[in-house]
Amino acid sequence: MLQSKLFYRTHKHISSSGESLNSQLLTRAGFIDKLSSGIYSFLPLGWRVIFKIENVIREEINKIGGQELLLPTLHPKKLWQKTKRWETMNVLYKLKDYNKKEYALGPTHEEIIVPLAKKFIQTYKDLPLYLYQIQTKFRDERRVKSGLLREKEFIMKDLYSFHRDERDLDEYYQKVKEAYIAIFNRVGLQGKFYFTYASGGSFSKYSHEFQLETPFGEDTIYVCQNCHYAINKEIKKDTPRCPHCGGTDFEKKKAIEIGNIFKLKTKFSKAFDLYFRDKDGVNKLVMMGCYGIGINRLMGAIVEVKNDSRGIIWPSVIAPYKIHLISLSSDNGAVKKEADSLYNFLQKHHFEVLYDDRDDKSFGEKLVESDLIGIPYRIVISEKTLDKNSVEFKRREEKDTKLINIKNVAKFLEDLD
Amino acid sequence: MLQSKLFYRTHKHISSSGESLNSQLLTRAGFIDKLSSGIYSFLPLGWRVIFKIENVIREEINKIGGQELLLPTLHPKKLWQKTKRWETMNVLYKLKDYNKKEYALGPTHEEIIVPLAKKFIQTYKDLPLYLYQIQTKFRDERRVKSGLLREKEFIMKDLYSFHRDERDLDEYYQKVKEAYIAIFNRVGLQGKFYFTYASGGSFSKYSHEFQLETPFGEDTIYVCQNCHYAINKEIKKDTPRCPHCGGTDFEKKKAIEIGNIFKLKTKFSKAFDLYFRDKDGVNKLVMMGCYGIGINRLMGAIVEVKNDSRGIIWPSVIAPYKIHLISLSSDNGAVKKEADSLYNFLQKHHFEVLYDDRDDKSFGEKLVESDLIGIPYRIVISEKTLDKNSVEFKRREEKDTKLINIKNVAKFLEDLD
Repeated sequence: MLQSKLFYRTHKHISSSGESLNSQLLTRAGFIDKLSSGIYSFLPLGWRVIFKIENVIREEINKIGGQELLLPTLHPKKLWQKTKRWETMNVLYKLKDYNKKEYALGPTHEEIIVPLAKKFIQTYKDLPLYLYQIQTKFRDERRVKSGLLREKEFIMKDLYSFHRDERDLDEYYQKVKEAYIAIFNRVGLQGKFYFTYASGGSFSKYSHEFQLETPFGEDTIYVCQNCHYAINKEIKKDTPRCPHCGGTDFEKKKAIEIGNIFKLKTKFSKAFDLYFRDKDGVNKLVMMGCYGIGINRLMGAIVEVKNDSRGIIWPSVIAPYKIHLISLSSDNGAVKKEADSLYNFLQKHHFEVLYDDRDDKSFGEKLVESDLIGIPYRIVISEKTLDKNSVEFKRREEKDTKLINIKNVAKFLEDLD
Repeated sequence: MLQSKLFYRTHKHISSSGESLNSQLLTRAGFIDKLSSGIYSFLPLGWRVIFKIENVIREEINKIGGQELLLPTLHPKKLWQKTKRWETMNVLYKLKDYNKKEYALGPTHEEIIVPLAKKFIQTYKDLPLYLYQIQTKFRDERRVKSGLLREKEFIMKDLYSFHRDERDLDEYYQKVKEAYIAIFNRVGLQGKFYFTYASGGSFSKYSHEFQLETPFGEDTIYVCQNCHYAINKEIKKDTPRCPHCGGTDFEKKKAIEIGNIFKLKTKFSKAFDLYFRDKDGVNKLVMMGCYGIGINRLMGAIVEVKNDSRGIIWPSVIAPYKIHLISLSSDNGAVKKEADSLYNFLQKHHFEVLYDDRDDKSFGEKLVESDLIGIPYRIVISEKTLDKNSVEFKRREEKDTKLINIKNVAKFLEDLD
């Protein structure tokens, strides 16, 4: 992508005070634009990150048998009345059509997927079943000062599992846990998140959250110093010992929830009479689990922990581009020609390159913007490097630069990932 | 994908009469499920088709410089008041949040993208600009009996272009026209659609639609027998001669609109004061175009024209799977083993295969279902074919079958596309 054509604009500061770090950095770097309180547009740079996070999630959920589908956003009122959540869920947006028929805007999809599954599940042979979607949710949130961490509309991966019995649910629950660990590792959060015990509601003892440690986190967790599992604040009072290892020594940390897994058991199958005929001929309620990852929230959380004073530091797997190619030239002749030709070469070899081809920006401006945007690998071509038939290579998170012979650039970049 | 695990169910008939052909076929074949009037879930088979159509569109729009982003669904009332469409657009869903703030659910995005572009466009150097998204739209439609052809929520590709002057707009308009032709050809509609003159509203003489010929189309078009451009019913009365070639001999046809391109000119830039500073230092209004393809509608339209009495006939590029591998066996031994092994082999070689591995279905049931689902290439392994070390190959749209030596299957399939 030519930076001269890219739809973005960086800002040195943003005016509104009290904005979260992720919102400030992503707005300043041209990834998002705030339309209204809790409502953001994703500009091309930001959308590429969302897209990449989605694909990592898709790959890992497909690996554990998830089948992707797409459920509607407009939910007829009667389905939400069945579970009594029409009245009790206070974030529910409600609207009427021309005919006075009422709908909720889906904040989650149990009310849709359970009646749908009921049309398909008849016997034990139809189980287990794992269905997920990546779709926009709507929640009428009261507090929306956290940028992408709490929005009124946001993209979510929601997975629902259906089982014959609790043992099968438990086994799959473990698989989802492992898939989530793989996802969070792949998007660059390795070693920074904690598997955390949370309240299981009325049906399970515990549910679990994945909590990302960060100084500005809105949640508080207690990390067991023995096993490094954590428990959240909500259940800490009633849980003096670590539920995983029995340890009693905890460290208090600030964190952001980046995913949760929850055993619904028969809560929703009961509400919608979702039964299956078991091997023994007896009709039984289907056991369920649900598993969510807020994708915008995950993007915001990553930015909260992957930055420095100069800007964002994208993990390579989800960076909008892998390589930031920058031509720095006062004359606009040989350097530009060489940079153009390297850009075309890299494009042809399927590298994802943002090419700062602008000739009306100073050296300083270009490098400051590059750090703010945070693409992992920077390649600079200037008169100085060309004198040595080279380009200057730098990783965003490191200080050192290195000269690479221009002939070896492709090979060098290929070996990086 | 193993068919025994796939979340789908076929139906011989569907109960509700008066359903459109696309809705009947897609429901019977397990691609979609109706939640409520004009609101559908996309099951895994259906979602794969949507996904593939999206990617064809993405590729063609990227080729003409489109930058993908994602705009919100919740639109603050004040933006829709600016264009006066808050009161005049009758398909607008409106809702209030907990704080009585009012929003529209986006049925189109001029009201969002123009104020957004205004933050970024300053001078002629920022033009032209082409922005698009693939996103769910909401329209409170009164008539919703056409299945995927008219829904209350649906996925749409909407592209908006921004230009210095009308000439630049005209040039890009032509490029979008060519891109649309490429899209419709690639998704399998070659030779079946007409470039059609339609009303340009108050600002342009004409806009243009792409109309797909089909006996059940809700639109009427008049095809010029000289040049094969068409004009729609709305403007026929005032347009006795073909606007393209001047011809006067027309054939009346039923059709479905599958895309439209429209010169907005300065209609929306005026409403939002979207100016740019031109080379001559003068501030001028930005010229705009907008270009839509309803993706669900396109899927429904394809089904309307790609079917026979036995079911759907998917064009290969957008088929949910390319190959339907079916094991037909009475003994469950050697045939199943060979089919399993061929399935694994094809998977490993990245063919997209749906494998009917079920052993509780009859020969007849499997073949009837296969025709209904409509995957382009069918491979049957049975005792009879195994005796000849072969599989039976058949194209969905042809009658003939052909024996292929099992060793040559991969090579044979590779040469098909």
